[in-house]
Amino acid sequence: MIQNKTPIRVRYVETDAMGFAHHANYLAWFELARIEFMDALNMPYKDMEKEGYLLPVLGAHLKYRKPAHFDDHLIVVCTAKEKPRIRLKMEYEVFREETLIATGSTEHAFMNPKGMPIRPPKKFVDLFEQNGADA
Amino acid sequence: MIQNKTPIRVRYVETDAMGFAHHANYLAWFELARIEFMDALNMPYKDMEKEGYLLPVLGAHLKYRKPAHFDDHLIVVCTAKEKPRIRLKMEYEVFREETLIATGSTEHAFMNPKGMPIRPPKKFVDLFEQNGADA
Amino acid sequence: MIQNKTPIRVRYVETDAMGFAHHANYLAWFELARIEFMDALNMPYKDMEKEGYLLPVLGAHLKYRKPAHFDDHLIVVCTAKEKPRIRLKMEYEVFREETLIATGSTEHAFMNPKGMPIRPPKKFVDLFEQNGADA
Amino acid sequence: MIQNKTPIRVRYVETDAMGFAHHANYLAWFELARIEFMDALNMPYKDMEKEGYLLPVLGAHLKYRKPAHFDDHLIVVCTAKEKPRIRLKMEYEVFREETLIATGSTEHAFMNPKGMPIRPPKKFVDLFEQNGADA
Repeated sequence: MIQNKTPIRVRYVETDAMGFAHHANYLAWFELARIEFMDALNMPYKDMEKEGYLLPVLGAHLKYRKPAHFDDHLIVVCTAKEKPRIRLKMEYEVFREETLIATGSTEHAFMNPKGMPIRPPKKFVDLFEQNGADA
Repeated sequence: MIQNKTPIRVRYVETDAMGFAHHANYLAWFELARIEFMDALNMPYKDMEKEGYLLPVLGAHLKYRKPAHFDDHLIVVCTAKEKPRIRLKMEYEVFREETLIATGSTEHAFMNPKGMPIRPPKKFVDLFEQNGADA
Repeated sequence: MIQNKTPIRVRYVETDAMGFAHHANYLAWFELARIEFMDALNMPYKDMEKEGYLLPVLGAHLKYRKPAHFDDHLIVVCTAKEKPRIRLKMEYEVFREETLIATGSTEHAFMNPKGMPIRPPKKFVDLFEQNGADA
Repeated sequence: MIQNKTPIRVRYVETDAMGFAHHANYLAWFELARIEFMDALNMPYKDMEKEGYLLPVLGAHLKYRKPAHFDDHLIVVCTAKEKPRIRLKMEYEVFREETLIATGSTEHAFMNPKGMPIRPPKKFVDLFEQNGADA
């Protein structure tokens, strides 16, 4: 299991007329948490794209337990339990202080710039193994 | 089962550096499809909010089968199989011409402006029954 | 002068905690109005991109006179007074029924996919002239 | 003159099919820079809203000099030259390292929750004066 924490401060533009952070923003926060997870793994997503690996989203699940509001300081805990094979699965927990306000997961493919599915880069898989993901 | 179709034209602002419509936008499209579903049911969401009923999102599932691109003309088919009880469940299929490019669902609570869970308005439930939703 | 009208229905995701349509969305609405302006001119923006012409935004001005709200049905009037030379200037007026709620303008360069400034395609300039833009 | 700096890391969701950060996001970044400016002034915007003061945007100007890209680390320098009277004017410069990539300004009214224009809170004006804004 590999885990990384990303702080999020809810922007005004992310709120809606209910006074809550609009539910679509959680996918953008998960994405940011993924980016920082990959930074922490020493494999920045920008570098992966330069090397010809894109990670499109195949699916997403979100469960909203409590609303978030403007200016809330949240923590997104991003977890990968298994190393990537053909697909990569990431899980997310969103906390406001000690309170879990949302959970979710995303599943990703590896794709080349022409849109063809490819295997993940060996270096990326190795980094997962070295950092403790299940095989 | 009640069903309504909403046309979506992918905006440039909705694209990302992969050249695809960013995956977070599908939640905004589902939302728009819900709004038009409620219009077709003769119970506009704006009127429900005025009468004190908010419909926050409790959960969402998304499956992306094929990418959408700038200027694609999509159809979001929004379906409610059952009448709302304490919760409302909506399902979505996104088509580009004959091709199904994404599917999803959302689940909603009914909430008053103070944030307390409430029962759905009777008129709303009746409209579902009159239009053919399962009891 | 060439003019085209684009209907906009304010989405819930576009609202903010003030209960207004967030001011950043007007730039997305202007963009949509530009796209439809170019459709009406018989020179869809998507086709221009395929032919190697991008129109990045160099500058924008916005004046917000009255707020827009969820579900407002707006009309964006998009006007080009002059034919494009090295730059293209577009103007916008946003109406809710008879009420002018916002105005703005954007200025664009023509750029090739490598990011180099280029002249506008002759066909595009000709279409402006044929449709009545000042020389 | 009062000034504050806000770091921005360009999110993937903020990019568009040109491979640039979409121009509408700069208004969201300016907003975030305003929020942090007010934090630094010891008058958080959230507290102002609680005390009944909203700051809707009356106008905005943006000049894009160079594109920003995914994962760019930007600095938004937010400056107020004068203390607020009936209106508040803020200016912005966006830097990537030493390079100025965009500039802009926004103008704001003070409004109560019923939408009526009001004078700025005295404490807010005093903080501007104490921190060196021109009278």
